[in-house]
Amino acid sequence: MEKQKIQELFDQCMEVATEDELKVIHQLLLGVQRKKQKWNDSYIAAILNMEKSPADNEYKITIPINSLTENSLGIVHGGITTTVLDTVMGTLANTLLPDGYGAVTSNLTIHFIAPGKGERMETIAKVIHKGTKTLVMEGSAYCENGKKIAHCTATFFIIKK
Amino acid sequence: MEKQKIQELFDQCMEVATEDELKVIHQLLLGVQRKKQKWNDSYIAAILNMEKSPADNEYKITIPINSLTENSLGIVHGGITTTVLDTVMGTLANTLLPDGYGAVTSNLTIHFIAPGKGERMETIAKVIHKGTKTLVMEGSAYCENGKKIAHCTATFFIIKK
Amino acid sequence: MEKQKIQELFDQCMEVATEDELKVIHQLLLGVQRKKQKWNDSYIAAILNMEKSPADNEYKITIPINSLTENSLGIVHGGITTTVLDTVMGTLANTLLPDGYGAVTSNLTIHFIAPGKGERMETIAKVIHKGTKTLVMEGSAYCENGKKIAHCTATFFIIKK
Amino acid sequence: MEKQKIQELFDQCMEVATEDELKVIHQLLLGVQRKKQKWNDSYIAAILNMEKSPADNEYKITIPINSLTENSLGIVHGGITTTVLDTVMGTLANTLLPDGYGAVTSNLTIHFIAPGKGERMETIAKVIHKGTKTLVMEGSAYCENGKKIAHCTATFFIIKK
Repeated sequence: MEKQKIQELFDQCMEVATEDELKVIHQLLLGVQRKKQKWNDSYIAAILNMEKSPADNEYKITIPINSLTENSLGIVHGGITTTVLDTVMGTLANTLLPDGYGAVTSNLTIHFIAPGKGERMETIAKVIHKGTKTLVMEGSAYCENGKKIAHCTATFFIIKK
Repeated sequence: MEKQKIQELFDQCMEVATEDELKVIHQLLLGVQRKKQKWNDSYIAAILNMEKSPADNEYKITIPINSLTENSLGIVHGGITTTVLDTVMGTLANTLLPDGYGAVTSNLTIHFIAPGKGERMETIAKVIHKGTKTLVMEGSAYCENGKKIAHCTATFFIIKK
Repeated sequence: MEKQKIQELFDQCMEVATEDELKVIHQLLLGVQRKKQKWNDSYIAAILNMEKSPADNEYKITIPINSLTENSLGIVHGGITTTVLDTVMGTLANTLLPDGYGAVTSNLTIHFIAPGKGERMETIAKVIHKGTKTLVMEGSAYCENGKKIAHCTATFFIIKK
Repeated sequence: MEKQKIQELFDQCMEVATEDELKVIHQLLLGVQRKKQKWNDSYIAAILNMEKSPADNEYKITIPINSLTENSLGIVHGGITTTVLDTVMGTLANTLLPDGYGAVTSNLTIHFIAPGKGERMETIAKVIHKGTKTLVMEGSAYCENGKKIAHCTATFFIIKK
């Protein structure tokens, strides 16, 4: 990948960018930096600006809501809500496992309840069942005003890394 | 948002970027352009480089697999697989509705079957049921070698836009 | 249906019945009576001997565990667990609706966690979301020792009866 | 369990039984017989009168629709539909496993599509994925006029018996 080509593409984007697009470009580049600095362990988490906060037997992840997270109807894209919930449940699952073991999603069901709107989406994961081979987790997503956006459950397989 | 600040962030990212990071930055900026040029109708679709292809009674979306789509285990992030499947099912659902109506995901269940690896992920959506108030759809995701990565079903509400 | 034919069938069953089969026949006939006396509003609820107990913002149903509820592996049949959970969630949903409205299951996801064993299975339903068109409910099933057997969520449509 | 007590209960039921109740009692007693004669391997399958028919890479189970299968709204109880679908998928799964191995449902999602009405409900199971540790199956339920009642998917764990 030639740096020159990327530089030209960046210049083109910037030249015609609206205020809203400038914010998106900024968040994307911050995401690249967050990933490099290992604040997040995947690009999608970094780009969505996932902020993690562990708690007793639960886990929270918050992301900003803006153009980057919108679907074509102007509300948070259901795929993004699912991505954050999968991540928060998986992160909590991993904190419960001994070193050398990891949790991978086997299946996930999400109920979309209300449109994701506002400034921030807050998600919280809890444990429904911790077995020796699987974990069943639940996750909820909320607007910053406390309105529930979505509820999901998932089974995670416990694997040796 | 000051252009100057974004320019500096871009320069910082480029200066220290590995070859892999350069590719990610390139794909992200292409995504901004794809969204502006309305090749995709959401940023997440644009950034993931979703290529749509309609067919008789079904719909396909393909995305490149690379660092941008990886989770911390080096396989396609389950949230991204779900995002593409939600999009391909929703897109097919929308093509089946009269003007002025849209389909929004009510609930979605995904079974993860095999790790997403390789160069491209191909997804295909089909109709299970078309009612007057809801649509039930199914979607499958495949590696380019034909191996199934995931299978999902979802209910979409039909709403007046 | 000739009564004579049923009488003969009953006599045949009784003649060769083991102690266990006698109990099953007894529970089945009790179910017919429970349904006739409107203690339960469906045969399946009556035959499974569902005992309902409402509570604040939740609802409980308990059934006896025995040969009648077993699958071929000697544990509670997953379909029966699902039937009780669907019923307890639907019953709670209906208590939340005004006269003339009813709740019908649109979709349901169940995670089976541990084998259903023991004397009794207790289920409890709670509300996750009450909207104007749908209700999202959750239900859990337990052995009488408190061990969780299954966890499920479901969306119910609100319909005019 | 005293035979005398069961005899009395049977007599009471018969004395006041409507034509419809006579049919239910007949089907229940036939179920006891079917189970004893090992036509079905669980009481619930026997009582619902499940007729199995294997086919290439798929499996069918049919049951009669009548008062016994109704919910309080006069359509097939969603729990019964789920029970038949769980059974047909599980039965197909078991036919695919070597001797000494069995399939147990890990999770199941069902979409209810149309009210179950008519004389018979036909269900069919197919394989979505056969792995070394799990099987992902799908099942559909139909009225005898071909109308789809429900669609479901499930993950089965492969266990050593």
